[in-house]
Order: sequence, then C-alpha cells, then structure tokens
Amino acid sequence: MSKFGLSGKMIAQPGKRDELAAILMEAAAGMDAVPDCQIYVVSLLPEEPDAVWITEVWDNAEAHRASLSLEETQAMIARAKPLIAGFDQQVKHVPLGGKGMRA
Amino acid sequence: MSKFGLSGKMIAQPGKRDELAAILMEAAAGMDAVPDCQIYVVSLLPEEPDAVWITEVWDNAEAHRASLSLEETQAMIARAKPLIAGFDQQVKHVPLGGKGMRA
Repeated sequence: MSKFGLSGKMIAQPGKRDELAAILMEAAAGMDAVPDCQIYVVSLLPEEPDAVWITEVWDNAEAHRASLSLEETQAMIARAKPLIAGFDQQVKHVPLGGKGMRA
Repeated sequence: MSKFGLSGKMIAQPGKRDELAAILMEAAAGMDAVPDCQIYVVSLLPEEPDAVWITEVWDNAEAHRASLSLEETQAMIARAKPLIAGFDQQVKHVPLGGKGMRA
C-alpha cells in the first residue's frame, strides 16, 4: 500500500495565525499516539503573515482518513475551524521514501 | 535560528520522472551523513506523471545552502539537471516543530 503525503497552506483569519498554529502544534504533538502518522510538521510562511504550511506523511491514505474521525482530531478541528479563512496549494503526494520517514 | 523548510515540485523531462526520482532518492539516502538535514522525502504526484514532489526540513537556511556546495550534492545536481524540465510551487517555510522533526 502506498504512503500518503499531504502538504498545503491553511490561511488563518486576519490576526489569528499564531492561535491557529498553536492548535496545529497540539495536533502534531497528539500524533505521537498515532503510529501510522510519520510526519506532521507545522510551518510558518515568512511572506504570508496569515498562512500556516502543513506537511504530513502517513503510512497510507486510509490511516489519514481514519485519523480525521478520532475524537481528539474532531475536537481540534472544531477549535481551529473558526480561525481558518481558507486552504490553498493542497498537494496530495505519494512518498517513495527518504530521510525522516520509514520506507 | 529558525528552521528551514523547502517543499516543491520538480518537473522531469517527458518519460524521465522515475530516473530523476531515483537520483533524488540517492540524494535522500546521502542525507543520513548530513545531520542538519532532518527531513528529505521524495514523493510522486498521482495526477502528474512527470512530477516529483520534494519535502525538505533543515536545522537552518545556512545548513541547506552549505549542502548545495558539497561535492556529492554537486555530482547529483549534474546527473539530475538534464532530466529536469522545470520547477513549480517552490514553498520556502519556517518549520515550528511537529512529529518527525527535532524542535
């Protein structure tokens, strides 16, 4: 089964980026309890004060989909939703391997 | 010093994606000897048969810059160059942290 990668931009409501990034960092910390999530990195974009860039790598697409229905994830989504103005550059990719992930 | 992230698409010459991806996977394996490279993941894009998606996270921008002048990197670039038709969606980002990287 192929790995599943998702990289993309979340645009926060004006002035809400740091609050959104903090929730996403909590979500990233929560992924320590989710073995089939290999990478969940939260980044800022220097030239875009309202944007957060998320990089995810999962063992497979099904694991990613299943994680969205976890209670903790649903709670995070509910907290984050009002802070999100939109999404952009959502790239679904198939990680072949490399440094920082299990083949 | 901020972390440095780079995510983006490399477009291969028609029919050369797999050859390019193989060189990039070699480059990723070479990063095991480069401690300040935390993540170097090579991915395919299901809907784009000529594209490779690269995800990099480095301890800082200087480390990334310095790596480009390593002999091994220069040799890889020379091998890959004729296979590359272009670049797209190059996103420079500042990783705050998360799963799969050192804070």
